[in-house]
Amino acid sequence: MAGTNHRRPALTGGPAIILVEPQLGENIGTAARAMLNCGLDDLRLARPRDGWPSDKAIAAASGADTVLQKARLYPSVPAAIADLVHVFAATARDRGMVRREVTPRHAAAEMRGWLASGEPCGVLIGPERTGLVNDDVALADTVLTVPLNPAFSSLNLAQAVLIIGYEWFTSGSTASPEILHRGGSRLATKEELLNFFDHLEEELEGSGFLRNRESRPHMVRNLRSLFQRAQCTEQELRTLHGVVTSFAGPRERRRQTNTVDGLRSLKPGKMLGLVDRADDE
Amino acid sequence: MAGTNHRRPALTGGPAIILVEPQLGENIGTAARAMLNCGLDDLRLARPRDGWPSDKAIAAASGADTVLQKARLYPSVPAAIADLVHVFAATARDRGMVRREVTPRHAAAEMRGWLASGEPCGVLIGPERTGLVNDDVALADTVLTVPLNPAFSSLNLAQAVLIIGYEWFTSGSTASPEILHRGGSRLATKEELLNFFDHLEEELEGSGFLRNRESRPHMVRNLRSLFQRAQCTEQELRTLHGVVTSFAGPRERRRQTNTVDGLRSLKPGKMLGLVDRADDE
Repeated sequence: MAGTNHRRPALTGGPAIILVEPQLGENIGTAARAMLNCGLDDLRLARPRDGWPSDKAIAAASGADTVLQKARLYPSVPAAIADLVHVFAATARDRGMVRREVTPRHAAAEMRGWLASGEPCGVLIGPERTGLVNDDVALADTVLTVPLNPAFSSLNLAQAVLIIGYEWFTSGSTASPEILHRGGSRLATKEELLNFFDHLEEELEGSGFLRNRESRPHMVRNLRSLFQRAQCTEQELRTLHGVVTSFAGPRERRRQTNTVDGLRSLKPGKMLGLVDRADDE
Repeated sequence: MAGTNHRRPALTGGPAIILVEPQLGENIGTAARAMLNCGLDDLRLARPRDGWPSDKAIAAASGADTVLQKARLYPSVPAAIADLVHVFAATARDRGMVRREVTPRHAAAEMRGWLASGEPCGVLIGPERTGLVNDDVALADTVLTVPLNPAFSSLNLAQAVLIIGYEWFTSGSTASPEILHRGGSRLATKEELLNFFDHLEEELEGSGFLRNRESRPHMVRNLRSLFQRAQCTEQELRTLHGVVTSFAGPRERRRQTNTVDGLRSLKPGKMLGLVDRADDE
């Protein structure tokens, strides 16, 4: 995973993540990893308790070294946010302060807009055990609160960074929320699908499964509906042709002996057989 | 944090989280914690490598013991998903399989709908080092992929559970994406705000700041615009009245001596002074 770092697209220019008095180097490392997961690389450290740089941070970053190498150290929160125009304070607690509070999703959309207008922004995240003090919250424009189970809403540093970063990343993602992977094949055309229906229904005629003329149209429609719904690829249809042939093989031979009402010669117009009988129901 | 468990609202009934061959007890514990963060409590373990129950899981769960206590152990993935109707496979890799793939947000919306219709569902999450094998992915209807930095998209177990759970939780959250905390006060009425403007502008007249009759309307509007934008509470306006009085105090006395063009008697209609002069610009 780490080895792919150098190929990564230029996913930079996102908001700054400002860790205020982080206690453990490990947590700085896992926060850096979460940042790189989300394409963020402006990490700022205000008064890290155990000093900086930190070997423990590097070990915990699992390859997100680029973020740690770029990290900047500051003697205070005001120094760390001096160049920013918009600052969020991540906190789960209501401080009894008069303050705008937004969700990470709302914050991400706002930050997209600001950064596009050239207004740098960032998010303050407090120390592991206590979170931000009120004086640091008062340095921010807006409180950012992750909506979570109100009775169990404490996140560790990396998880808070991950949620904020994930919303940042998805706010800029143009990926479709639903796609169909085709496994190297392509979706079948309707002609290919209808050919398969012909094959299947012909063999089911031969096997006697569609013997009942009354229930036949209903049965055929149900089977067709199922395969339509599956959105088969061309490759899958070839597999299904093979499955039908493999089942039908012995019957095929049986039929050739018995010549069951000449169905085998009826290749193209098979579908019409269904339409013609639609009135029967 | 742990102590608040018992007060938690009944945030149950969400999808099952099925950990397939999880390797470390610690990771089962942190996954359980992420589940409780998001109001999920149906944890299923298929062949955990180091056995079950696990002291290390309990230690890492940081109070999410209820989820671990309810966790169920299964000898196989088919056994773990037997009662479910819809199953997602969480994976970052394209397996070359023909398969529907959705984002966690899309999956969360689908699961909300299914669970509301009484159709149980769950998400398969593979072992830490390797992720799900293709045969397990083939047991799921749909692949669930977290949109992340394509060159650095590996999440640990708890983080994958957190993102999936976070989307589940927010999909059911009716919380406003933006609220204004009032710190125990209430937003000021317009009358209260206009009274403050009267006070401020009166004192600024007295101090000479609004001496220039031409620029006065523009200046007054700018100041009013700033305080309008701040959406002051009633308490904040009282503080601001105090600030103005505290600044104006010495001048007040000075003015009482000089009786600067009788402005102090002009309390109510002050705003009109601005409107009347609007044509001047």
